[in-house]
Amino acid sequence: MSHLPADAARDGTHLFDGLMLDSRLEAVLSDAGYVRHMLAFEAALARAQAACAVIPAQASHAIVAAVDGIHASELPGIAALVAEGTARAGTPVIPLVRLLANRTSPEGQPFVHWGATTQDVMDTAQVLQWRDVLARFSDDLATLGSSLASLAEQHRDTAMVGRTVMQHALPVTFGLKAAGWLDSVTRHRRRLNDLGPRILALQFGGAAGTLASLGGSGAAVARALADDLGLDCPDLPWHGARDRVAELASFCGLLCGTLGKIGRDVVLMMQTDVAEVAEPVAAGRGGSSTMPHKRNPVLAAVMVGAGTAAPGLVATIHSAQMHEHERAAGPAHAEWRTLPELLRLTGGALRASLALAEGLTVDPARMRANLDATQGLVMAEAVMMALGTRLGRLDAHHLVEAACRRASAGKRHLRDVLREDNAVMAHLSAEALAELFEPEAYLGSTRHFIDAALAAHASLSPGSRHLATSEPTEAAP
Amino acid sequence: MSHLPADAARDGTHLFDGLMLDSRLEAVLSDAGYVRHMLAFEAALARAQAACAVIPAQASHAIVAAVDGIHASELPGIAALVAEGTARAGTPVIPLVRLLANRTSPEGQPFVHWGATTQDVMDTAQVLQWRDVLARFSDDLATLGSSLASLAEQHRDTAMVGRTVMQHALPVTFGLKAAGWLDSVTRHRRRLNDLGPRILALQFGGAAGTLASLGGSGAAVARALADDLGLDCPDLPWHGARDRVAELASFCGLLCGTLGKIGRDVVLMMQTDVAEVAEPVAAGRGGSSTMPHKRNPVLAAVMVGAGTAAPGLVATIHSAQMHEHERAAGPAHAEWRTLPELLRLTGGALRASLALAEGLTVDPARMRANLDATQGLVMAEAVMMALGTRLGRLDAHHLVEAACRRASAGKRHLRDVLREDNAVMAHLSAEALAELFEPEAYLGSTRHFIDAALAAHASLSPGSRHLATSEPTEAAP
Amino acid sequence: MSHLPADAARDGTHLFDGLMLDSRLEAVLSDAGYVRHMLAFEAALARAQAACAVIPAQASHAIVAAVDGIHASELPGIAALVAEGTARAGTPVIPLVRLLANRTSPEGQPFVHWGATTQDVMDTAQVLQWRDVLARFSDDLATLGSSLASLAEQHRDTAMVGRTVMQHALPVTFGLKAAGWLDSVTRHRRRLNDLGPRILALQFGGAAGTLASLGGSGAAVARALADDLGLDCPDLPWHGARDRVAELASFCGLLCGTLGKIGRDVVLMMQTDVAEVAEPVAAGRGGSSTMPHKRNPVLAAVMVGAGTAAPGLVATIHSAQMHEHERAAGPAHAEWRTLPELLRLTGGALRASLALAEGLTVDPARMRANLDATQGLVMAEAVMMALGTRLGRLDAHHLVEAACRRASAGKRHLRDVLREDNAVMAHLSAEALAELFEPEAYLGSTRHFIDAALAAHASLSPGSRHLATSEPTEAAP
Amino acid sequence: MSHLPADAARDGTHLFDGLMLDSRLEAVLSDAGYVRHMLAFEAALARAQAACAVIPAQASHAIVAAVDGIHASELPGIAALVAEGTARAGTPVIPLVRLLANRTSPEGQPFVHWGATTQDVMDTAQVLQWRDVLARFSDDLATLGSSLASLAEQHRDTAMVGRTVMQHALPVTFGLKAAGWLDSVTRHRRRLNDLGPRILALQFGGAAGTLASLGGSGAAVARALADDLGLDCPDLPWHGARDRVAELASFCGLLCGTLGKIGRDVVLMMQTDVAEVAEPVAAGRGGSSTMPHKRNPVLAAVMVGAGTAAPGLVATIHSAQMHEHERAAGPAHAEWRTLPELLRLTGGALRASLALAEGLTVDPARMRANLDATQGLVMAEAVMMALGTRLGRLDAHHLVEAACRRASAGKRHLRDVLREDNAVMAHLSAEALAELFEPEAYLGSTRHFIDAALAAHASLSPGSRHLATSEPTEAAP
Repeated sequence: MSHLPADAARDGTHLFDGLMLDSRLEAVLSDAGYVRHMLAFEAALARAQAACAVIPAQASHAIVAAVDGIHASELPGIAALVAEGTARAGTPVIPLVRLLANRTSPEGQPFVHWGATTQDVMDTAQVLQWRDVLARFSDDLATLGSSLASLAEQHRDTAMVGRTVMQHALPVTFGLKAAGWLDSVTRHRRRLNDLGPRILALQFGGAAGTLASLGGSGAAVARALADDLGLDCPDLPWHGARDRVAELASFCGLLCGTLGKIGRDVVLMMQTDVAEVAEPVAAGRGGSSTMPHKRNPVLAAVMVGAGTAAPGLVATIHSAQMHEHERAAGPAHAEWRTLPELLRLTGGALRASLALAEGLTVDPARMRANLDATQGLVMAEAVMMALGTRLGRLDAHHLVEAACRRASAGKRHLRDVLREDNAVMAHLSAEALAELFEPEAYLGSTRHFIDAALAAHASLSPGSRHLATSEPTEAAP
Repeated sequence: MSHLPADAARDGTHLFDGLMLDSRLEAVLSDAGYVRHMLAFEAALARAQAACAVIPAQASHAIVAAVDGIHASELPGIAALVAEGTARAGTPVIPLVRLLANRTSPEGQPFVHWGATTQDVMDTAQVLQWRDVLARFSDDLATLGSSLASLAEQHRDTAMVGRTVMQHALPVTFGLKAAGWLDSVTRHRRRLNDLGPRILALQFGGAAGTLASLGGSGAAVARALADDLGLDCPDLPWHGARDRVAELASFCGLLCGTLGKIGRDVVLMMQTDVAEVAEPVAAGRGGSSTMPHKRNPVLAAVMVGAGTAAPGLVATIHSAQMHEHERAAGPAHAEWRTLPELLRLTGGALRASLALAEGLTVDPARMRANLDATQGLVMAEAVMMALGTRLGRLDAHHLVEAACRRASAGKRHLRDVLREDNAVMAHLSAEALAELFEPEAYLGSTRHFIDAALAAHASLSPGSRHLATSEPTEAAP
Repeated sequence: MSHLPADAARDGTHLFDGLMLDSRLEAVLSDAGYVRHMLAFEAALARAQAACAVIPAQASHAIVAAVDGIHASELPGIAALVAEGTARAGTPVIPLVRLLANRTSPEGQPFVHWGATTQDVMDTAQVLQWRDVLARFSDDLATLGSSLASLAEQHRDTAMVGRTVMQHALPVTFGLKAAGWLDSVTRHRRRLNDLGPRILALQFGGAAGTLASLGGSGAAVARALADDLGLDCPDLPWHGARDRVAELASFCGLLCGTLGKIGRDVVLMMQTDVAEVAEPVAAGRGGSSTMPHKRNPVLAAVMVGAGTAAPGLVATIHSAQMHEHERAAGPAHAEWRTLPELLRLTGGALRASLALAEGLTVDPARMRANLDATQGLVMAEAVMMALGTRLGRLDAHHLVEAACRRASAGKRHLRDVLREDNAVMAHLSAEALAELFEPEAYLGSTRHFIDAALAAHASLSPGSRHLATSEPTEAAP
Repeated sequence: MSHLPADAARDGTHLFDGLMLDSRLEAVLSDAGYVRHMLAFEAALARAQAACAVIPAQASHAIVAAVDGIHASELPGIAALVAEGTARAGTPVIPLVRLLANRTSPEGQPFVHWGATTQDVMDTAQVLQWRDVLARFSDDLATLGSSLASLAEQHRDTAMVGRTVMQHALPVTFGLKAAGWLDSVTRHRRRLNDLGPRILALQFGGAAGTLASLGGSGAAVARALADDLGLDCPDLPWHGARDRVAELASFCGLLCGTLGKIGRDVVLMMQTDVAEVAEPVAAGRGGSSTMPHKRNPVLAAVMVGAGTAAPGLVATIHSAQMHEHERAAGPAHAEWRTLPELLRLTGGALRASLALAEGLTVDPARMRANLDATQGLVMAEAVMMALGTRLGRLDAHHLVEAACRRASAGKRHLRDVLREDNAVMAHLSAEALAELFEPEAYLGSTRHFIDAALAAHASLSPGSRHLATSEPTEAAP
């Protein structure tokens, strides 16, 4: 193998894309997708300015025709040209506008990019990407919610041990655990509904945010442009106010946190020592290159990976809010590579979660066996509460704690130890004691909580989301 | 000076508290404030359980009386005892419950902390703190908005140079800059309104989130407890689902980002080389220990400091979302010191911003002088747009760009250079050219944008906030 | 309980200090400790300037006497006064210098703080704190290394299952796991040795880093001052170059990462389902407020908590490197509260790790039982490698993988399944097969690795560390 | 423009690669570069195992021949296949080993990847990438140091104003500023020398870190393999101990911090209002799409961008240190995309800094003009120090501070104000006063500091670096 020349290499680290990302988002987030949205902005700008009589109708037609004349298959090539120009110009808009002008007939040429500035194009194209991505997230969250709701319903009464601080605590059900995951997902869906209208806003301010180049027509053009693109027309241009960007990043961070939590729970339950659930089997997935017996968590690991990597990216976007004056010298650069990566990781973790939730194998028998593994210790609270009504909580606590210690030391069942304890049996019959060791009888409000989570999920119709009106593929020019 | 024994030192780093924090929040966020809220939880729990006939009414009265009997002046001492116990027990609730039980008369003693677990107390007390803090933030943001609105109105027509990528770009007004700051603040106020109902939720799940210890009464007690505390009763206990915590942290991060951006803008405008604004003068503030002529930005530096430090804290809280199972072993610890610090930094930056916005000195004459400093270059776009309607945008761009270079090289006024350019004067009269160099004539939609920001601010009545109903001081037991 | 007035509360969040921090560091890191170091700087400055004939000897004597006259018991009070002044002045040095001048006799008064600036005092005092803290870290790391070395030696042959991607993989020994932890600790000790000389450097530059106020004597005074304080005299003042600060923060982050990894391993091994190790028992530690049978990890959770919280703090310090010009307006503020917190968390996690490593209970029998739990599956690689020499690795892999699946499906021991497989038994005798299932026979280089880690540990004598020469208590004035 | 099908898009965000990255690193960091290093590992493994008689010599020859037979031009294609397989298998090593086995002649086939595990290949290939990247960083830092040294020498006496907290403070020289930048760079070069030997270590542990699959030959093979690859042979496999990874990330963070600081200083000095330096002009760079007169900082903005984005990535790698047991389920995934991105951003900022430092335009006349802009105020300390020897520092401070205020208020030169002040003139002659206003006479140890920085730079010969012995291109198979 001879030395590899730089130009022979496909740039970037894409080896883990198929594993960690959602390829369906690449049509939106790739350079070609971004260029497509930048061109959509330029076309809509021309239409809006013609409608407001800022530029001639013919000019608008020419520009729109030039954009329409670009076939999707050309976009990667155009993106490559733009990338090359960006290295020189410091911004992708200068080379893109030049390219578009070259493809526009003479009556339109002078009016290409009229009155707009670099950041208007970059930010608005970015918002158009966000809309497509959020629509995907919204659909996926609805699907994930439904899968989790099915798990919650199906395992409503599947008793398993609840673990706090990684110790067996009390009985819960797997349905409750799934309902807990669902509860966060439902909250994220509501957050998405709040978020959309606030962040899917046109950026259009011209060189310094005054739209001075449009004289008295700036506000009218902005309104027409926002309507054309199906975006909110904000009170003010926001080139220097990046809280919308940081809000989106925060949402991704929250979502990755939940997906990471689900993934971690699954990884823990998939431990060989626990073996309560297993990831759906897919041909060739999760094997080891050297250990033939291994079944590694793959989807859950992707989710934990996103939960680990997202916070740093969120922090970068938060840091980059400190834009200087009317446009930043540096902080903006920090956004350019970070936000797409965060959106990708989020999308990838979401995709993994869909497969996980859809196909998770649950082993109720093993769950029951694990529940019994500590010989009644997990029912200690049940006994304590029963005694507590007679003895008071603290005395009961001491009594049961001592019995637990004796049971542990003697490797005996707690029930048997308690049966020998006169202080206890003075208050409980043998049957009453035996009943206290039925996990199913000590689930408290578990079903109530599951029902509440299912009802909240059901209240969010999949079609109710704000973002549904502008489907990504139809928003494209 | 002899060696300092460890116990002689007041622990912690508090040297910068007065500078960087808001002391009004310490009544809430201090250990004493936290203990106060934990006690409030225990009292409300007793009331709710008595109302649901889970514990005897006398027991409830006894517990409530014990809590009521604790004078505020005792709280720091109690907090110190609890802190000591926390070091041994790993959680502050065990020592606090013991202390409370000791102070409760016999009929209540057995029922102290009945059915609740550590995290119920810690998380709900924390939420009660949040409510107080958010109420303060809400008030402060309303006040900040009003101060910024005043600046925007007062300086609606105060022309200054807009700076993009730290270069003079085009004329703007200082009113527009203030309106841009206001616009973010208005958005934060809306976010706060969305956020409150979602995060100000009771945590009450018992040992593993099933409320098993309350038998069939769990849901009813939860509802009564939430009502008593004035909190939302969530669908499910959320000990293991930390997205609410992360959402609050994200909000703080967004807010610190905006305050940091305002601070950075002010720092830049306060540069000796720019000198367009100055912080309000306070006796002794901003001096140098060695340079008698210095007037350093102090408030703005606090704001930039918060904008710099918040993202890392936000990332920690986001990371800590990956709680294991029903309660975490480690991630929770990461929350305990991080979130209060983030709330403190946010409150401190907000306090600084109030003083800054209220007392900012603005120098319109210097702003105008800076606008003129480049001898007309900032009006280049105005000329280009005027020529563009005749020549097309790109040709006009080239023509004006060349003139700019000649003007820079010859250190002449751009207007004079253009006046000698036949290609230009073929399209413009001398008067028309002169008019193009009036900054006030090239402000486009500036007034419109300011009006929109002011209207949005005005639409949020200071009294409309969700959180107003439960004032911090009245929420206290 | 009546409402708590703000001034009744002890400020700050200290409830978890005893649990999460190392109180021995507070003598150094507290405000009093910081003030002590600032005063030490002022005294050393006076001595150095007198030695270089920059100020009169009497002036120096007077200043040194004033510093010496401050009793340790006064420091907290002084710190409180300085804190108050900081809120007004924006820096603690202005009030401190005023206070010191007031306590200095007339011949010294004019020369207090001569030629120095705020940041000289703050940064150098900080470096003096670092030295004390690093000396503590150095000692603690040596002790931790020794404890881990003991575990590695003692459990050199204690077989347990190795877990990759949280699945049982192959046999290892607990000694190897401890050796792996030790290996990182050894590396941290070497890093500390590299780090010390680079970061323990005087900061002394005067108002703008030129020492102009000392005329031609600046460099000589700097040298004498560094010698007096036992610090490195750097090539240049470093007020604006914060890589030293970030290097220290990075070291803390690395160390917390290792401690968090150890903590997480322990948490996982302490799971009820695994139960291979247990934290040392301390009276009252690790109990639950409601579940009498719980033994929660406390020390390990503190370590994981530090590993979770440190990265965000590291990121803040890294961000704050972008100081503007000769001194920052904001980034410095971000350092002030962040670095002490990071040092505290690191010290606390280190303290927890000492207790953990010293007292860890190891259960070899349970380790062995867990190793056997998968009925021979963890020995699959051993079989595969044995077959591989005959059949090739890939064929052997397929063969054994299929047998593993049959064993899992039939819940049988892998050995028994293989024994029925002619394709296998064609290459292995029954005895050879049985031997392949002895874990102790499949440990490869385990002992070699343990020995290497122990040797590397032994090569670092506890007394060899660079920092040992200036003990914290003796460095104090 | 019709809708873009996903497969038509080139995946990933590469639009800013040319602007923000260093294309020379892509041969190393691209997927093809990574695959090349993984193959190099497999070949070296075969050689080492044959040398230790673990596998037959023919097998080794066959494997090495198969690797050698892969032409560089095939690598992108192979990388694409591996990427596809990674999506299914969860790791790139399984598909790569399969591919390599398919290309290996029968006598070698059974021994491909013998005894190694996924992470051995991934981590060691990664370390080989690091070596190449660090060699590039080392060269670039040497070059950057030289450029900065030239600036420091050339502008040793170019007086400019020192700015603290963004206010004019005292005179410095531009040479001193450059020397300060150089000082950090020199420190980074020393760090790199410390770092290399510690992190450039073979990872080779087999399935669980025992090398059990190699029987008694594990340690010998490890040694031979490390020697073959030119890497350090560590005491222990480090699959679960990620401090080396975090140390590299920290180094990148430190370096980006310094580059960001330099970038920010340049951005600030390039402000239209300051105009003391300018970036080297390149055709088409730094223009605005709408403002013909703009000359935006481009290189400096890239550097600030890296300084803003690096900390979040550093935090991720630090977080990911908490690997579980012998290999992580999630944290590793967080490393995979984050570390390459961090290395890329660092390399890109370094490349930008080379162009910046090489071609920076410095305007001494403007520096001098800015120094004079405050009419003598920046010389206030000089006057104070001169008076201080007579009056004491505090009295002098008050006197001069008052004069500064009068000068500011009256917009007069401080010298003229002082000349009218009898309290001052009692101690100074008119000539002495005039001399105090010569900036060049108040530079203290400036030259000394510059000389020290230059000497430290000179002491690091460009050829002395540890990493030089194994050039990236020669390390390739």
